[in-house]
Amino acid sequence: MQFASDNTAGISERILKAIAEASNGFAGSYGGDERTRALEARMADLFERDVTIFPVVTGTAANALSMAAIAPPWTGILCSHDAHVMTDECGAAEMFTGGAKLFGIDGRHAKFDADELARRLEAWPGGVPHHVQPAAVSISQVSEFGAVWSVGEVGAIGEVAKRNGLKLHMDGARFANAVAALGCAPADITWRAGVDILSFGATKNGALAAEAIVVFDPDLAASLAYRRMKAGQLLSKGRFLAAQFLAYLEDGHWLELAGHANAKASDLGAAIEAAPNCRLAVPVQANEVFAFIAPSVDRALTEAGAAYHDWPAGIPDPEDPPVDGEKLVRFVCSFQTTGQEVGRFAQVIGTA
Amino acid sequence: MQFASDNTAGISERILKAIAEASNGFAGSYGGDERTRALEARMADLFERDVTIFPVVTGTAANALSMAAIAPPWTGILCSHDAHVMTDECGAAEMFTGGAKLFGIDGRHAKFDADELARRLEAWPGGVPHHVQPAAVSISQVSEFGAVWSVGEVGAIGEVAKRNGLKLHMDGARFANAVAALGCAPADITWRAGVDILSFGATKNGALAAEAIVVFDPDLAASLAYRRMKAGQLLSKGRFLAAQFLAYLEDGHWLELAGHANAKASDLGAAIEAAPNCRLAVPVQANEVFAFIAPSVDRALTEAGAAYHDWPAGIPDPEDPPVDGEKLVRFVCSFQTTGQEVGRFAQVIGTA
Amino acid sequence: MQFASDNTAGISERILKAIAEASNGFAGSYGGDERTRALEARMADLFERDVTIFPVVTGTAANALSMAAIAPPWTGILCSHDAHVMTDECGAAEMFTGGAKLFGIDGRHAKFDADELARRLEAWPGGVPHHVQPAAVSISQVSEFGAVWSVGEVGAIGEVAKRNGLKLHMDGARFANAVAALGCAPADITWRAGVDILSFGATKNGALAAEAIVVFDPDLAASLAYRRMKAGQLLSKGRFLAAQFLAYLEDGHWLELAGHANAKASDLGAAIEAAPNCRLAVPVQANEVFAFIAPSVDRALTEAGAAYHDWPAGIPDPEDPPVDGEKLVRFVCSFQTTGQEVGRFAQVIGTA
Amino acid sequence: MQFASDNTAGISERILKAIAEASNGFAGSYGGDERTRALEARMADLFERDVTIFPVVTGTAANALSMAAIAPPWTGILCSHDAHVMTDECGAAEMFTGGAKLFGIDGRHAKFDADELARRLEAWPGGVPHHVQPAAVSISQVSEFGAVWSVGEVGAIGEVAKRNGLKLHMDGARFANAVAALGCAPADITWRAGVDILSFGATKNGALAAEAIVVFDPDLAASLAYRRMKAGQLLSKGRFLAAQFLAYLEDGHWLELAGHANAKASDLGAAIEAAPNCRLAVPVQANEVFAFIAPSVDRALTEAGAAYHDWPAGIPDPEDPPVDGEKLVRFVCSFQTTGQEVGRFAQVIGTA
Repeated sequence: MQFASDNTAGISERILKAIAEASNGFAGSYGGDERTRALEARMADLFERDVTIFPVVTGTAANALSMAAIAPPWTGILCSHDAHVMTDECGAAEMFTGGAKLFGIDGRHAKFDADELARRLEAWPGGVPHHVQPAAVSISQVSEFGAVWSVGEVGAIGEVAKRNGLKLHMDGARFANAVAALGCAPADITWRAGVDILSFGATKNGALAAEAIVVFDPDLAASLAYRRMKAGQLLSKGRFLAAQFLAYLEDGHWLELAGHANAKASDLGAAIEAAPNCRLAVPVQANEVFAFIAPSVDRALTEAGAAYHDWPAGIPDPEDPPVDGEKLVRFVCSFQTTGQEVGRFAQVIGTA
Repeated sequence: MQFASDNTAGISERILKAIAEASNGFAGSYGGDERTRALEARMADLFERDVTIFPVVTGTAANALSMAAIAPPWTGILCSHDAHVMTDECGAAEMFTGGAKLFGIDGRHAKFDADELARRLEAWPGGVPHHVQPAAVSISQVSEFGAVWSVGEVGAIGEVAKRNGLKLHMDGARFANAVAALGCAPADITWRAGVDILSFGATKNGALAAEAIVVFDPDLAASLAYRRMKAGQLLSKGRFLAAQFLAYLEDGHWLELAGHANAKASDLGAAIEAAPNCRLAVPVQANEVFAFIAPSVDRALTEAGAAYHDWPAGIPDPEDPPVDGEKLVRFVCSFQTTGQEVGRFAQVIGTA
Repeated sequence: MQFASDNTAGISERILKAIAEASNGFAGSYGGDERTRALEARMADLFERDVTIFPVVTGTAANALSMAAIAPPWTGILCSHDAHVMTDECGAAEMFTGGAKLFGIDGRHAKFDADELARRLEAWPGGVPHHVQPAAVSISQVSEFGAVWSVGEVGAIGEVAKRNGLKLHMDGARFANAVAALGCAPADITWRAGVDILSFGATKNGALAAEAIVVFDPDLAASLAYRRMKAGQLLSKGRFLAAQFLAYLEDGHWLELAGHANAKASDLGAAIEAAPNCRLAVPVQANEVFAFIAPSVDRALTEAGAAYHDWPAGIPDPEDPPVDGEKLVRFVCSFQTTGQEVGRFAQVIGTA
Repeated sequence: MQFASDNTAGISERILKAIAEASNGFAGSYGGDERTRALEARMADLFERDVTIFPVVTGTAANALSMAAIAPPWTGILCSHDAHVMTDECGAAEMFTGGAKLFGIDGRHAKFDADELARRLEAWPGGVPHHVQPAAVSISQVSEFGAVWSVGEVGAIGEVAKRNGLKLHMDGARFANAVAALGCAPADITWRAGVDILSFGATKNGALAAEAIVVFDPDLAASLAYRRMKAGQLLSKGRFLAAQFLAYLEDGHWLELAGHANAKASDLGAAIEAAPNCRLAVPVQANEVFAFIAPSVDRALTEAGAAYHDWPAGIPDPEDPPVDGEKLVRFVCSFQTTGQEVGRFAQVIGTA
């Protein structure tokens, strides 16, 4: 019962095979290879428009480089209080931008309303050099509490951002899970909804280590070739990043993997709803399950060897706090999660 | 005839197999896995002492993070004018350190004498806040012109560094090629010779993407766990970095791969020496061959489809400049280079 | 009726005279002059111990350089949500530290309890590289809502900081006003209470532009000579910074100036308490007066030509919000404020 | 005999008086005062066009902020090997730019030829992300070896910069001395010759501490209001910076002061030429005199109490090195230097 994170899983068979195949023979280095060129075309197809892509190896790098491209040192980036860029990247954005500030916005499930964003921007002391000026908004799709932004929600944020001259970044560490959940075109949830730059993750969903910065606003692409190199994120054997992504995107493999993970999470969520001493903290929409569990459940799961994380940082919904000794925990399903594991989980909590 | 770079090669069979094996099942993320722990022990064995290691994915990241650990923002790092950290990393060290300066030192073959280093340090305006203060020395083993630092040469640099209170960094992007060439213990050419921190590369010698910062001075290790995360260089599926390195180091695989590359370069160098219209610019010591070639040789090789690089930046030895229309070029051999390729190369240049 | 800020005032007569005197003849540059040496001795007397001082020209520079000296790039600094370093310095601390994060703490009057600080530190996910690690605490004396930290309050913060291995910084832009209000020895409210580094401001209290970083922890001083230069804060004609401070500190001039400003603010506060349509938002302790005023008062003051600032950012006390159309405003008195001005102010609001 | 530097002098009478006058009454803070507005108009007059100005307190800040405005983190700035920004500012430019690199160009007297600049730019490996890309050129007027760039020389540099898409910065720490020497309009030697941004110094020529970033390219001005604040260089009592500059520029006071210093340096140079055991290392053009002196002269001057600096860093002209135990030294004259001092100097060296 491995529910600690989707990054405790390995590499999908198809991606592993693609890496092996890419290893044959010689290839141009630093992205000067056929696979990288093919990926550019493949991404353009996927997003139904020209895009510039910058494959990198971690989500933190993708996010921090994206921030640096859209937020000069004296500006601010608005995001959820619980955003990964805010809390889990050791201040990478602050370093890569040269000192920009991140501002947390209130909301439920690590999302926030376009209205709340608009209010914050209206109240901003604009044009006064004492105050960092807002330059960008960042949203995580899937959110840090496992919630999915609908096409309409992203569009509303995009609209407010555009109106205020701000760029919109999407942290898509679990972009596949979101697209699988929404069943929409990738374009609909990104540039058509106002997203200027996307961190498109594959690692959590079956890659070895592959993330791509996808740039929809051509003006933003110019600096990134240099910034990526300067950050030590340009791989000499770039073909292996491209190979992972090509296999990931081929025949909808990425959505298949994500769909599997989402389905298992859905089952796991149903088991929690059916069990006596635990309850969902957030409706399950993708591959993460946040739940309040009683000490007895915690004990039973631990004894049964289940791996999952306590989640002491933040509460998904201020109006729905834990009660009676409940504890907030997170269970994550991956492409590798089996029905058997989820079945056993249901069994354990059903009697705890 | 692929001699453009050792990073145009693929992944060695053993390393590829290790990646596939590591993909089975689940593993702790962010370095909390068994393979990463095993690698720490393996590295301690290899270097005959306790070390702290920080696997990352590029040499630039390994170098820039190492610099950041040893050189505060107001200090300087002395290195060869031709050092990779100086000329080929888009100023990564300047960014990661927060604004330290790199100072080029004169020398032959992208190396420099300990005496020259000592002279520079003596002349430094110490303690004056207008001037950045020297904090570190960086040498590349193998050097950027394919030369290997002997144990004595590194020791002499280490001694000057220590005497002046400076830390010594070794950029070991081709560390395996150097150790294979020297036939010495890794300890002899690193910490026993005064090296405090090493960028230990595997990518150019058969890995997919694997570099390790190896820290010999325990005081330097404290900040690096955070700096690596902040730089977006901590892999979530860290087991795959560890797996690459474990396979790399097992049964002397790394030295076998490097030895092969060195031998091919040696043959290629011999072919150049035997041919009429070209000559070595630097004695061949590892897997790179720098040569002055006449236009006829350049033409013949290009027509034969050989891949290699012009090398317009710098001259290996100021006392031995190109003459009569000669051009400086670089040929690199890798673990993948075949005797057949080198044979054909010899044939082409023999009649050009 | 100039109550916009204490920095709308000019230079005190004694300080102006000292500048003129210092202009005679030649003097060593970059701090190598007699006045700077005399100031070091004078500061040591004032603080009853050895200190290292770094005169600079703005409070932002003093604060940001202090932060850089105590908080490495991967760490965090805890301060009030309303701290000047948090909200009014355009992210200077983030830049000077190389990317450290500031964390706001809840509290009243831009102060916070030692217990609240302790709670935050206990809950911190320590040793995990994803999370920036707390390195320092910063408090503003006087606080941004005009409140003075008592000796005991600072000591309690200092105790929590020390216990957690954190450095304590004091932003003393209005340090004189605090000391004048408390009537304590400068040592009592700084190093004896656990402060490691102080931004000692003189500009707001009668200097042209003079702030001094006062370092109580000798280890922190080493880097600052270089950091100050690198930040463009080392004045070539340093004698003029020293001259300002020497005159400022001579014969208790600084406390006389601050005492005057405090007294005028006290009178102004009393006038507000006596007037019908306004009330104090924070008890007056130093030279700033925060008040809730009715629209009629706002109108009357504006018509009478009074200069003061609306204060839309934050509420001094969450339990005491504005009601019935009240607006939060700030009035500041300086050494230049006259009894006549305050009298007229009282008259205007008395009938508004 | 105070020839150590022009920054060992005090404040000119007129500027001191202007500071005192500005101290009367209240004034808007942070540049929101009448004097600052008047200075903007005055500068526009002086430069015969619209300019945006950012007064700061040190030349290092003016230079580093200018660099930050014209050189993104992944770029390079070309300047003389002996440029102040290269050697004497503790790497401020590297920090303020977020990691840009400075590249030294060969030349005489800390100047360089437009042809040499063009050659360097032609040889640049453009568009390759491994290499920082040239973004700007910086020249110092007066140069660090006391030489003045002619209008034609600046124009030639400006032309090469423009052709290559680079911005041109002028470090005018001794701008007044250059303009006084050239007798040209400030516009002729700046924007008309291709300068985009100027560090206009007043401190070395009679101000307390006043430098202004003068921006000719409007696009560059946008970020500087924020960068200056973030750098802790926006003075709260900005009126005193403006007051210094207004007095400095009034009735040609700046040129009068500089003309005096230049004339004294000219006399001092003539004395050196007339004396037996010393010689000029650089023709005297402004207020600095670089000379090679024999040990006997060094001894005689020291015994007579003369203050001046040894100049071990660099040689003004590689083709004219010191011989026979000569030492390179620097004498600087200021607005405060008297004919009497120079006369005594001539007497001392005449018999040494």
